[in-house]
Amino acid sequence: MTQSDPVLCAPSRPHAFSPRATEIIAAGRRLLEAEGADALTMRRLGAELGIQAPSIYKHLPGKYAVELALVDEALAEIGLALHQAVRHPGPAGSVASVLAAYREYALAHPNLYRLATGSRLPRGSTTPSLEDWSGEPFFLATGDPQVAQAMFSFAHGMVILELDQRFPDGSDLQRTWDAGADAFVSACRSRSATSAVAPAPGPEAEVH
Amino acid sequence: MTQSDPVLCAPSRPHAFSPRATEIIAAGRRLLEAEGADALTMRRLGAELGIQAPSIYKHLPGKYAVELALVDEALAEIGLALHQAVRHPGPAGSVASVLAAYREYALAHPNLYRLATGSRLPRGSTTPSLEDWSGEPFFLATGDPQVAQAMFSFAHGMVILELDQRFPDGSDLQRTWDAGADAFVSACRSRSATSAVAPAPGPEAEVH
Repeated sequence: MTQSDPVLCAPSRPHAFSPRATEIIAAGRRLLEAEGADALTMRRLGAELGIQAPSIYKHLPGKYAVELALVDEALAEIGLALHQAVRHPGPAGSVASVLAAYREYALAHPNLYRLATGSRLPRGSTTPSLEDWSGEPFFLATGDPQVAQAMFSFAHGMVILELDQRFPDGSDLQRTWDAGADAFVSACRSRSATSAVAPAPGPEAEVH
Repeated sequence: MTQSDPVLCAPSRPHAFSPRATEIIAAGRRLLEAEGADALTMRRLGAELGIQAPSIYKHLPGKYAVELALVDEALAEIGLALHQAVRHPGPAGSVASVLAAYREYALAHPNLYRLATGSRLPRGSTTPSLEDWSGEPFFLATGDPQVAQAMFSFAHGMVILELDQRFPDGSDLQRTWDAGADAFVSACRSRSATSAVAPAPGPEAEVH
């Protein structure tokens, strides 16, 4: 990956909202990030904005629309962080760089991360092009769709176990992230060695 | 791994319960597996057993005790499945065998799996020796504690994303599991090649 590499898909942007709807979504984000998804109710939103809850419906069709808008925000922010990570990987290489950016985002926004990746919203409710773009850096770092999906699963598993405090006390999680990065770098090398005829685009190139 | 390899830690067993408490826990498992964790209430347990909910407290201190007993059951069952997988890996090798057994268990018992691995129960509430034993096959298959923890995180991430239906439609998840297995096999090889002085016990030996 070099800085001049094009981003393969143009980033999709969340829908445009009216100024008032944007305020409501921002209030929803404050509630969600501070207190978790259960705090995100129309009543709490109304209190936060100093208006009656039913007035919110003039601007957005309900709590579900607020949640979807926040998931789009999260996907856009994760995508931006990961695309930057894969374009400017540093000496550790693009696999490690993407994993570090993913971890940093999720740990900084645990409740937003849970909303965007958990089972609360039905499959297919997010903006597909945005979800694809957000996950694309896993492919750019590995050059293989299956390795990319496996690496994403590792990142999600690590993050959600870390957020849920499911690792034993005293676990050196940085070393575990490093071991995962090593595994997916090894997988890229192994796959490119066995498919030298048609190399996949953009595989991890750095020697770690 | 050969069939005669000793299991490094003896399996811990869940606490002994009275016959009535055992019935209550079994009813709790039926409710949990059929309807999810929210269905596991003292009222529903009473209805399931044909007794008044308060009578349950004569045998168990409450819903929390039922949940803990079910998590112990899940850890024991997962541990058994994984220890069998690592001792009888078949031609694909012990990493792939452990991952396949983990996936099979979780997909067969989604609600029990979620209860045992999610954030519902506080960290440290499960039986530590049982949790250690249950996870030990990841170490036996990789020979490295960090690679083992990374491989477990991958397995959990894959399973929970699969249960939550978060993968895009048309994803070939078996190939993604295979790619993850390849990555952790490669990581084992890479680590054992760089630590030839003191090889870790029980690393993945099969050529895939």
